[in-house]
Amino acid sequence: MRINDKDLNHYYASLSEIYKLEGINALLYWDQKTYMPPKAAQHRASQLALVDQLIHQRKTSPELQHKVQDLLQCEGLKPEDRINLQRTNYEITRNQKLSEEFVATRSRLQAECYSLWIEARPSSSFKSVAPHLEKLVELARQEADLTGYSEHPYDALLEVYEPFSRLSKIKPVLLELGGGLRQLIDQIPAKGQDLSSAKEEDYLAENQHQLNLAIASDLGFESDEGRLDVTAHPFASDMGPYDYRITTRYDETDFLSAVFSTLHETGHALYEMGLPKEYLGSACGRAISLGIHESQSRFWENCVGRSKPYARYLHRLLGRYLPEAAENFSEEQLYRAANKVQPSLIRVEADEVTYSLHVVIRMLLEEQLISGNLAVSELPDAWNDQYKNHLGLDVPADCDGVLQDVHWYTGSFGYFPTYAFGNIYGAMMHRKMRSDIPEMDSLIENGEFAQILSWLRERVHKFGTRFEAAELASRASGMPVSSQPFLDYLREKHLG
Amino acid sequence: MRINDKDLNHYYASLSEIYKLEGINALLYWDQKTYMPPKAAQHRASQLALVDQLIHQRKTSPELQHKVQDLLQCEGLKPEDRINLQRTNYEITRNQKLSEEFVATRSRLQAECYSLWIEARPSSSFKSVAPHLEKLVELARQEADLTGYSEHPYDALLEVYEPFSRLSKIKPVLLELGGGLRQLIDQIPAKGQDLSSAKEEDYLAENQHQLNLAIASDLGFESDEGRLDVTAHPFASDMGPYDYRITTRYDETDFLSAVFSTLHETGHALYEMGLPKEYLGSACGRAISLGIHESQSRFWENCVGRSKPYARYLHRLLGRYLPEAAENFSEEQLYRAANKVQPSLIRVEADEVTYSLHVVIRMLLEEQLISGNLAVSELPDAWNDQYKNHLGLDVPADCDGVLQDVHWYTGSFGYFPTYAFGNIYGAMMHRKMRSDIPEMDSLIENGEFAQILSWLRERVHKFGTRFEAAELASRASGMPVSSQPFLDYLREKHLG
Repeated sequence: MRINDKDLNHYYASLSEIYKLEGINALLYWDQKTYMPPKAAQHRASQLALVDQLIHQRKTSPELQHKVQDLLQCEGLKPEDRINLQRTNYEITRNQKLSEEFVATRSRLQAECYSLWIEARPSSSFKSVAPHLEKLVELARQEADLTGYSEHPYDALLEVYEPFSRLSKIKPVLLELGGGLRQLIDQIPAKGQDLSSAKEEDYLAENQHQLNLAIASDLGFESDEGRLDVTAHPFASDMGPYDYRITTRYDETDFLSAVFSTLHETGHALYEMGLPKEYLGSACGRAISLGIHESQSRFWENCVGRSKPYARYLHRLLGRYLPEAAENFSEEQLYRAANKVQPSLIRVEADEVTYSLHVVIRMLLEEQLISGNLAVSELPDAWNDQYKNHLGLDVPADCDGVLQDVHWYTGSFGYFPTYAFGNIYGAMMHRKMRSDIPEMDSLIENGEFAQILSWLRERVHKFGTRFEAAELASRASGMPVSSQPFLDYLREKHLG
Repeated sequence: MRINDKDLNHYYASLSEIYKLEGINALLYWDQKTYMPPKAAQHRASQLALVDQLIHQRKTSPELQHKVQDLLQCEGLKPEDRINLQRTNYEITRNQKLSEEFVATRSRLQAECYSLWIEARPSSSFKSVAPHLEKLVELARQEADLTGYSEHPYDALLEVYEPFSRLSKIKPVLLELGGGLRQLIDQIPAKGQDLSSAKEEDYLAENQHQLNLAIASDLGFESDEGRLDVTAHPFASDMGPYDYRITTRYDETDFLSAVFSTLHETGHALYEMGLPKEYLGSACGRAISLGIHESQSRFWENCVGRSKPYARYLHRLLGRYLPEAAENFSEEQLYRAANKVQPSLIRVEADEVTYSLHVVIRMLLEEQLISGNLAVSELPDAWNDQYKNHLGLDVPADCDGVLQDVHWYTGSFGYFPTYAFGNIYGAMMHRKMRSDIPEMDSLIENGEFAQILSWLRERVHKFGTRFEAAELASRASGMPVSSQPFLDYLREKHLG
């Protein structure tokens, strides 16, 4: 049967409705973190749950699935339509495997465990949250069984964040990366500089805000289609086309912290901005995976932002927005402060070199938890052992150890590896870009980022989900997926 | 049959879902007016339309109506449950009289006419928007026919904003008010003062913001359950319990403009804050009418804000937040500036005395439009005649005349009278309050508003929709509805 345009339009209208609801949820969340009055928290949670439910109803709709399956039988489908339909069919099939009751129980337990974690973390009382965490691990294992997998239950969880990925593919890459990093760390001399301790001075948040607006805008983040606001934990999200929002936080004793957070979140936003608008809300108009997303944020934050030419550009910007900082620190000092290497306990504060080891540790622990080889009660000791092995550190208290990240306590298992793949993919692209754009350093130094962005637009952003993440990274960079380019990049920078 | 708690809870859960969606819509709208990037406008409109549609589906649900009608047959209903059920039944019945096609056509025409109006206003080109306005008038007349009325088609439109009201009840009151005001205006000597022309000075928006936060907070608007932001056209809205948002705008040459706008919007918010939270989302937890809503905003703006003791309190606040203003102007000058009386062309800039005449004019024109006695093509001339008759003014151009207000161009007919009833109800309450709280003046002067707010909470806010607007105003004030207290208040203030 030939494709009927009316049916196809009807399908796209259904996707568009889901997309609008997702944007509405993003706004409810963004507002919750930025401007919402504190006492509104409970009602806001119920509004978020309602919209989640409306989305879930649509994403499990048997009616939509029949329509999609009929359309997939038709002749004359464009390749993009086929990708979209297949993805919808896959998602509905997966979602239908989880009963409404399962999803509701999971949501409730996630919310409860999150609240307990908020209380448990400052006092390092892992035991008070352990029973709930155990239930969330059990639910994750059930989810894997319900949705199915061919090799390892962990694959079914990875799939949510990194479609088409598998433990058997990512683990060797991450272990190789881990080995390379440990070697490298041993060779890197203790250098780098901590600006906050170098000079006691207050860098007013308002001035930092102007600086960060300029940083984002120079990269290509347009103020008529985006915003930069302040939150406790920076994030990027979008409410729809031409509505990209990033957040940062200002430490008045350390202006660099916001600079790198803004570069990172701008990277995420630029990816979303560059997705093909003609497929808005359908698979072809979406990001392929969190790993690729993270490659974009880390590319701008690290490959660009922590480079020598960027330090020179930043120094000029400081002259305009934080003149006292420009006076206190030379370009070289900025560069060294941005590239201090020091094994530490907290992932989100880790430097570019040691960061991925935090991820390797978490992947190994997640694998054991989901395999059933590690009990939740044994998790803190296992965590501390891993930190000793990989980073040579003793963990003095669980607040700086197993309780530091929110992910597991909201039921997210399989998320962490995407952070390390961001580094790996980003470095592959960076290597290719340096050969494609030989004048890259001088462009960065002059604050001219259009050519760099355009490279990413053409080789990554515009493809949406048309290639799997690993294939996309390989096509963009012209090399197979491996941790080598990232290790080479670090070696050259820190030992070169 | 005895009432079954499960059925009743199910009913309240349905209302709660509608209430959450209404709060979500309020957030989409608030964000659109405050922080949304400009290029997101089109997608935001589609998100708003989607949530409107989700609400409309629920508010016309035959399933919900059957449930409600069954519950209404039960014995053992609490009076509040009965009021809620009756109101839901009434609303579903009314909404079902308008077909989905009718509602969709109306929404589309409203949006189109609004866009045309935005373009037509600056150039005074009424003719370019007239054909669309004609269609909206025709739809309003159709709406009246479809939903039904016993006396006048205008009643069916009034009902949306002022339930249980009728033209035959409001028109005599407004005409009496108009007559009284015209008499009064002739007697008021040209006094008052315009601060902006008195002294050329910039009052920084940031300092004004601190001042207005203090103004709102002193009245009882708590920062942990509300926000004050900046928009082109100030408004008040709420996203749910403990989430009340008001907006204002800052004119750096005239600090008083924001002060009165903040007092006004805070009045709206305090009413919402005072509604009974145990009936959240049901009729008993809602405002009874826009007229009562406006009585609260105008009470704080005018009866309190434009009083002599408030001028003294404001002068003290200025000393703290805008010291240059406190130096430039005496308490007496602030009071006179707040009470300048001068017939003028623009409703939203009108003073306390002439304001209601703008409303009388609009009511008379609306009545004729909806009766079919006035064609849209004749509207500008009719408008200008009314301004000559009631305010003695010539209208030089339609931008300052028939094109000045958005209401008609978005299909709102029957809305305007609520503004004048706000003045009438507010003055009735004010008279009673002055006798109940003899020390009111000194409380205001000292910035102690708790007792005043508590009076409004006990006599107005806490009743939700339990009494019709006119009855609520009469009960609160202990007097029948009439324009006399408002006229007396103005006479005493401006001629006393």
